[in-house]
Amino acid sequence: MSLSIKDHEIDIVIGALRSDLTSFMSEWRPIFSRFHLIIVKDPDLKEELKIPEGFNLDVYKKPDIDCVVGTSTSTIFSGYSCRYFGYLVSRKKYIISMDDDCYLAKDNKGILVDAVAQHITKLTTPATPFFFNTLYDPFTEGADFVRGYPFSLRSGVQCALSCGLWLNLADYDAPTQALKPEERNSRYVDAVLTVPARSLMPISGINIAFNREVIGPALLPSLRLGGEGKFRWETMEDIWSGMCVKVACDHLGLGVKTGMPYVWRNDRGDAIASLRKEWEGVKLMEEVVPFFQSVRLPREATTTEDCVAEVANVVKEQLGSKDPIFARAAKAMVDWVMLWKSVGSSTSSPGA
Amino acid sequence: MSLSIKDHEIDIVIGALRSDLTSFMSEWRPIFSRFHLIIVKDPDLKEELKIPEGFNLDVYKKPDIDCVVGTSTSTIFSGYSCRYFGYLVSRKKYIISMDDDCYLAKDNKGILVDAVAQHITKLTTPATPFFFNTLYDPFTEGADFVRGYPFSLRSGVQCALSCGLWLNLADYDAPTQALKPEERNSRYVDAVLTVPARSLMPISGINIAFNREVIGPALLPSLRLGGEGKFRWETMEDIWSGMCVKVACDHLGLGVKTGMPYVWRNDRGDAIASLRKEWEGVKLMEEVVPFFQSVRLPREATTTEDCVAEVANVVKEQLGSKDPIFARAAKAMVDWVMLWKSVGSSTSSPGA
Repeated sequence: MSLSIKDHEIDIVIGALRSDLTSFMSEWRPIFSRFHLIIVKDPDLKEELKIPEGFNLDVYKKPDIDCVVGTSTSTIFSGYSCRYFGYLVSRKKYIISMDDDCYLAKDNKGILVDAVAQHITKLTTPATPFFFNTLYDPFTEGADFVRGYPFSLRSGVQCALSCGLWLNLADYDAPTQALKPEERNSRYVDAVLTVPARSLMPISGINIAFNREVIGPALLPSLRLGGEGKFRWETMEDIWSGMCVKVACDHLGLGVKTGMPYVWRNDRGDAIASLRKEWEGVKLMEEVVPFFQSVRLPREATTTEDCVAEVANVVKEQLGSKDPIFARAAKAMVDWVMLWKSVGSSTSSPGA
Repeated sequence: MSLSIKDHEIDIVIGALRSDLTSFMSEWRPIFSRFHLIIVKDPDLKEELKIPEGFNLDVYKKPDIDCVVGTSTSTIFSGYSCRYFGYLVSRKKYIISMDDDCYLAKDNKGILVDAVAQHITKLTTPATPFFFNTLYDPFTEGADFVRGYPFSLRSGVQCALSCGLWLNLADYDAPTQALKPEERNSRYVDAVLTVPARSLMPISGINIAFNREVIGPALLPSLRLGGEGKFRWETMEDIWSGMCVKVACDHLGLGVKTGMPYVWRNDRGDAIASLRKEWEGVKLMEEVVPFFQSVRLPREATTTEDCVAEVANVVKEQLGSKDPIFARAAKAMVDWVMLWKSVGSSTSSPGA
């Protein structure tokens, strides 16, 4: 697939939780060097970033963040949430978001995967959330709709979000990784599929892409665990955000695809030490999932901003009294919509 | 996986639309020879069946069918629908159903796929219809639940139906195959997944397995196209039946899995010549899918028989006036439930 006409419509957002990005950037150079990058340095990170030469990029550090959103707001971007600042200041149509511990994966034939191209293909071909195609994404090359698939549904809907997957260290939670320390994902599943409407899923922020113009405001930092740390399995901010996105997409008639592209993730962190923190998130999910499964948005919600605001209302109403974390999340969602509108209409002020 | 304890709980049902089963049976011998087979000869087929020696099987021909269900009823088993007679007379817990144009497929490593073992693994491990796991079936070896998957949903539910897939000649409809005569499916997707609750799909009868004790009565011959022929793409009986099964599974809290195992299918039939017949099915799907998406069964429906009877009621009520084919299907569904109960409680009388 030729991506040339769309290269300038893409921002690659990298949240930097480590100071030395040399190996990460070098590995991705053949792919990333064609695109504009937004690197957001975790505001808690003290050391200077090490970034190799030769990329077209803007780097945002704590002073830049403070300047755009104010010092009182900039705290929402600490840790993995720094990536959301990149989503906020991007002016591009598509965002590819990649954790800084992701490396290039190889497909079944041993060929390095171009994750950016695969994400963009997913986003620029229709999704089919209203009827399940057993042969996976019918818009993949060589695939099609199976017998019995209604013709009226074959044009599909716009795809707003593309979730990728992980080889080697998969996105397990701390209990799973602690229980099965040797467990690694070695299964390369050569498929893309649309997650059906009204079916929820745990969306991970490790390797995703989305249409910022369409669904951008729903990817937001709002649920923050008390003991949240700097390991992926200690966070839930992306899972919560993913629930918001999926509910908004379902309401607005947009699609979410999952599957390829894969990235390779290396070991990082001590799962057993993380166990104590993680249970907070694990317990919260028992409330969060039934809640999001029951949420229905009013017809008046016609934009993503509307949807986020509506979800925030219901979170406050139905979950607010159960745990203060939910009331805080609801407020953060409302604040985010306002921030998105105000920053979106002003000029961004990147550092470098 | 050791299947030994379950071999005697399995019937492999083969609907014979061709008289010479020699190459089909020979290819499957290493797998099929361990199991009991039920071969049902299409009552319209005049020639004698050719079946190689060395299998443990019962063959049912028109006189046997007449004897069990009566001559007036036996017409429902013509063509591909002959397989349903096998479902009816089986007394086993699991049924594997395979079209006689299916051959062994090879996986990505070039190893022949044991479709029976894979179907049984799918059926005997839980399904997860209430929340989507991005890493596919968490009960597959080497797989697990991703971060954010609620622990309370990890035990899953009983899997009632396993849908397999097809390499080479995929299960496209006649228009697709006529439009893209060269299109073949060469993509071996190394995955199993649960189709989420409330998400419908076009279930094909070419390569499926199910728990007969649990969901058996919902696999039924009821929708028959006027111009239905002897090619898979000219039929819709399995698609309709699949809708019934999925709606029943969703209502009863049972799971449906799709994905592996693959079988290899060879070319057969003239897609262009079939086009005229197929459009009837294509048009019907435009009514059928929204209908099944809207069906909600009453709480009183607690068995599969109840569910089928309830669906039949609503079909008659809501679709009956649109096309006589639906009124006939509704009646056939009611009749089937009665037949299932009466034959199920009597002894079967296989010929041989």
